[in-house]
Amino acid sequence: MNPIRERLALLRREMKNEKVDWYYMTGSDYHNSEYVSDYFKICEHFSGFTGENVYFIVGVESAYLWTDGRFFIQAEKELKDTGITLMKMGEENVPTVKEFVKNNIKSGETFAFNGRLISASFGSELEKICEVNNADCINLIDIPEKVWNDRPCKPATEIYVLSEEITGESTESKLDKIRRVMDEENCDYHYLSKLDDIMWILNLRAADIECNPVALSYLIIGKEKAFFFADKKAVNSNVLNYLNSNNIEYREYDHILDALNKDCKDHIISGRVMLDVNSIDVSSYNLIKAAAEIVNKKNPSLYLKSVKNETEIKRLKKAYELDSVCVTKFIYWIKNAIKNETLTEIDAADYIDNLRRKVPGFLDLSFPTISGYGPNGAIVHYSVSEESNAVLKPEGMILVDSGGQYDMGTTDVTRTVSLGPVTDSMKLHYTKTAIGMLTLAKAKFLEGCTGRNLDILCRAPLWNMGVDFKHGTGHGVGFILNVHEGPQNLRWKFLEGMEEAVFKPGMITSDEPGVYIENQYGIRIENIILCVKDVLNEFGQFLGFEHLTYAPLDRDLIDVSILSNTEIDLINEYQASVYEKMKDHLTKEEEEWLKSETAKL
Amino acid sequence: MNPIRERLALLRREMKNEKVDWYYMTGSDYHNSEYVSDYFKICEHFSGFTGENVYFIVGVESAYLWTDGRFFIQAEKELKDTGITLMKMGEENVPTVKEFVKNNIKSGETFAFNGRLISASFGSELEKICEVNNADCINLIDIPEKVWNDRPCKPATEIYVLSEEITGESTESKLDKIRRVMDEENCDYHYLSKLDDIMWILNLRAADIECNPVALSYLIIGKEKAFFFADKKAVNSNVLNYLNSNNIEYREYDHILDALNKDCKDHIISGRVMLDVNSIDVSSYNLIKAAAEIVNKKNPSLYLKSVKNETEIKRLKKAYELDSVCVTKFIYWIKNAIKNETLTEIDAADYIDNLRRKVPGFLDLSFPTISGYGPNGAIVHYSVSEESNAVLKPEGMILVDSGGQYDMGTTDVTRTVSLGPVTDSMKLHYTKTAIGMLTLAKAKFLEGCTGRNLDILCRAPLWNMGVDFKHGTGHGVGFILNVHEGPQNLRWKFLEGMEEAVFKPGMITSDEPGVYIENQYGIRIENIILCVKDVLNEFGQFLGFEHLTYAPLDRDLIDVSILSNTEIDLINEYQASVYEKMKDHLTKEEEEWLKSETAKL
Repeated sequence: MNPIRERLALLRREMKNEKVDWYYMTGSDYHNSEYVSDYFKICEHFSGFTGENVYFIVGVESAYLWTDGRFFIQAEKELKDTGITLMKMGEENVPTVKEFVKNNIKSGETFAFNGRLISASFGSELEKICEVNNADCINLIDIPEKVWNDRPCKPATEIYVLSEEITGESTESKLDKIRRVMDEENCDYHYLSKLDDIMWILNLRAADIECNPVALSYLIIGKEKAFFFADKKAVNSNVLNYLNSNNIEYREYDHILDALNKDCKDHIISGRVMLDVNSIDVSSYNLIKAAAEIVNKKNPSLYLKSVKNETEIKRLKKAYELDSVCVTKFIYWIKNAIKNETLTEIDAADYIDNLRRKVPGFLDLSFPTISGYGPNGAIVHYSVSEESNAVLKPEGMILVDSGGQYDMGTTDVTRTVSLGPVTDSMKLHYTKTAIGMLTLAKAKFLEGCTGRNLDILCRAPLWNMGVDFKHGTGHGVGFILNVHEGPQNLRWKFLEGMEEAVFKPGMITSDEPGVYIENQYGIRIENIILCVKDVLNEFGQFLGFEHLTYAPLDRDLIDVSILSNTEIDLINEYQASVYEKMKDHLTKEEEEWLKSETAKL
Repeated sequence: MNPIRERLALLRREMKNEKVDWYYMTGSDYHNSEYVSDYFKICEHFSGFTGENVYFIVGVESAYLWTDGRFFIQAEKELKDTGITLMKMGEENVPTVKEFVKNNIKSGETFAFNGRLISASFGSELEKICEVNNADCINLIDIPEKVWNDRPCKPATEIYVLSEEITGESTESKLDKIRRVMDEENCDYHYLSKLDDIMWILNLRAADIECNPVALSYLIIGKEKAFFFADKKAVNSNVLNYLNSNNIEYREYDHILDALNKDCKDHIISGRVMLDVNSIDVSSYNLIKAAAEIVNKKNPSLYLKSVKNETEIKRLKKAYELDSVCVTKFIYWIKNAIKNETLTEIDAADYIDNLRRKVPGFLDLSFPTISGYGPNGAIVHYSVSEESNAVLKPEGMILVDSGGQYDMGTTDVTRTVSLGPVTDSMKLHYTKTAIGMLTLAKAKFLEGCTGRNLDILCRAPLWNMGVDFKHGTGHGVGFILNVHEGPQNLRWKFLEGMEEAVFKPGMITSDEPGVYIENQYGIRIENIILCVKDVLNEFGQFLGFEHLTYAPLDRDLIDVSILSNTEIDLINEYQASVYEKMKDHLTKEEEEWLKSETAKL
């Protein structure tokens, strides 16, 4: 019997015990994290589907799994023989989860989910639909826990304190700033479940999620005292002392719901509570709503942590310099090795990963390295597996998107590298992509601009020839934290009611245009750029960007004949700066190669 | 005695009769129009202030007039010896109107205004403040009417029908489209007070407001029947027959409030009424709210009329061609005349106005011509008067912003013209302004872009040297209608909750960057551009722009040494197209001059 069918049978038996007709699961964790630890891979365990953006409903006799277009082929393969129906999100006549619930959950039936895994807004909507359908809705039950025997443990890696020498700002100072906002909002408490916000405020780190140096935790900030919830195993005496010295009480991770529940003797929350309803789960939300008045506001730490302080910027510059050395050495290596060796995408990823591991202060990769050769480069979220692992040839291009976590900061960089002869269209697309990346980085603009103002500077060289890339141009990056961080970003599309964050000096963002030609090749060039002050005059405060990334552009992929003088200057200027930053970190052979690679066009 | 003091004494006598302690007035008309007829210039009559953006509160012993920074100097001069206190909007420690009302209207006092002149949102706020202060609020009383003896008549110029040959779409078809939206919103009525929307829907025009070919009117659209309110004197039998044939009942303009009032026997409105609460006055709003359920929605005509149809576009192209001939002839004339004659700003304005008057199909100017020489060019909303009228010298630059109303459409164009020697900084700023204007017009972008995406293409050449202009980059333009029209515009600043309109093929917008150096000079270059379809491919539908305006750039103001090859091509291409479009409309001397003016750089 297919093991998935066995697991579903166990799940259904327990559903029957609990008198549940439909059980709803998602790929999220309790903190609405972008990446999750194995403990939370419930959908994967019960469906066999390993992709992302997954929603899963199991009924007594049927089961339905939703995912988006990036994963249709993979899902069809992985769901084969499981009896699970694939629901292709966005396709015509495929209902959304909400529509499905509305149309299928009948009067008298019971629909259930673990509300800690579901957002407050979506969970409330599901509750309402059930009410309209006259169905019961149980919003806090973890059925998988009872029938997933070899479920991985909740992670509890050791938490450590980052010194002020590294963070540039004490927890005391950060809490002060947040309490000032609480005062303005006349709030008694501030509730946080976003892991990167909590880590940033407390200057703590751990390794609970792969590539994300965070600890599963909650934080409740009162007017004078705060409460930190984490696994006992993860908290050593050093951390306890540190918390103590900041007037922060430690509590066990699993006691968070008690702290929110007005009927529990250990409850904390009352009065007015500031929180972001878009990042809280529905179970916690319902408890807080019953105990206190909710003041909906984005976490102040979202904005505070996005503006890097001087210490962070100094360390980041070092991190990006050393990280760029890895990328530069990798490019030199692969261009030579391909001439003599048989290499695969995984070999390429391993090589650059190993270079990073040797950098002093290396902690982890900042995400699994994307290494896509030829047509695989055109898959934006490509993740190489033993099955897909392509053999590289001395022709065409490989796209490598990678980064590291160091005690100096978090990096993210993409280079597309030619391995031999390339076509004219590859050169055309690469050249225009490079010009887009460099033009945006060169922008000078008035304070008050958001990503929606600036995005076109990067896309224009591609748009002018009728080409687009279907992803954002840029995202913020954490400091020894998540590689994707808000609130700032670079996107162009207008969405009704969307919030936009203006660029502030000290913010860092990726600048990553690309061209993806299906079944042929993919190009992406990604630098991280730092927002800095430019001139202040009667017209206002102008801002600009500085490159943090210094890895060479591929000379063999640049078509000089289509460049204007200004554009040639733009490339020459960047390439010269790469040579200057890198030359002392390289072997003689590498240095000589880089000199010719970055020589004036 | 100062005549303003006499008028205020009369106003206060009537206030006493009506037991009103404070009377509030604005510069608006009943339709929230940008420009108003003399009938509505109440603030001007009772204060002597002739500027714009004015709010005026008269108390028993004191009086306060608000305006913004553009008009401080003028207001100080005009309010001298009137006893009226100038309230400088935006200056520190100057309360807003709302703050003033909150702090000064005392318990038991009566605050009054004519609610037909005040927006629903602002009027409701004033009512609430009075309630909190325990003061009475009379929201529908026209005290000026009783004491303004020589008040101009409400305009009632003859209304005329535009044939479908001109408009390209029948009223029947336009009403159909609007009724489809009413159906979607399940509405029984749609109430309109915006004059340009009403004129567009009904294919009617008049001349009630200078430069704006509209009639004071209201329109109520029912599911099958509609009601048009206008002055009896303005409606001839031809118009009556036309209305009849479209199942539109004519009613007297002054009966509009009765039609909204559920206690009047002639009332129309009931059920669900679709209207835009941001464009309705508070008196009408209160009446409708009492009689029906309000469905707040932007007028569908706002969007429909912004996308010009094929007939309109064909006529607009002709209008802009002939209008550009006027501008080209004017430039040739002034550059030569200045050598021999003594000319003033008014002479220049008169000359171009007279050229337009000779164009077949000329109806009116589209706004009073702005003619600013030297430092006057730096005043963005400069309006030349006998007092300010500068004498032109054979040096420096004159800025002329002007346009016409023709039976082919509405035009708007700005050129800055050198009259002799100019400085390097004038040339630098003119050249960068020209490049900004042409770069935006050359943009290619995906459908879905709004003005906030595109604006930076125009500003970048200026921003890159730390210069900005403090006005929008572009606005829509009506078709034989108001020169400023929404919903699309070109601006960069993000305002919380703002709505943005995406560009659609058929929309036209101004493209008008500038540089303003206080007390020295002003530069603005304005073309009108038409949004058109570009390629449709796997990446989506690309859009672009076409120039409608073909008036030459000033060769003497272009500094070739700072231009890249691409930028030189951009200017050469535009100048060549100007010569091609204009050459057959000119005298031999003009044509020869234009040929050398537009020759390749």
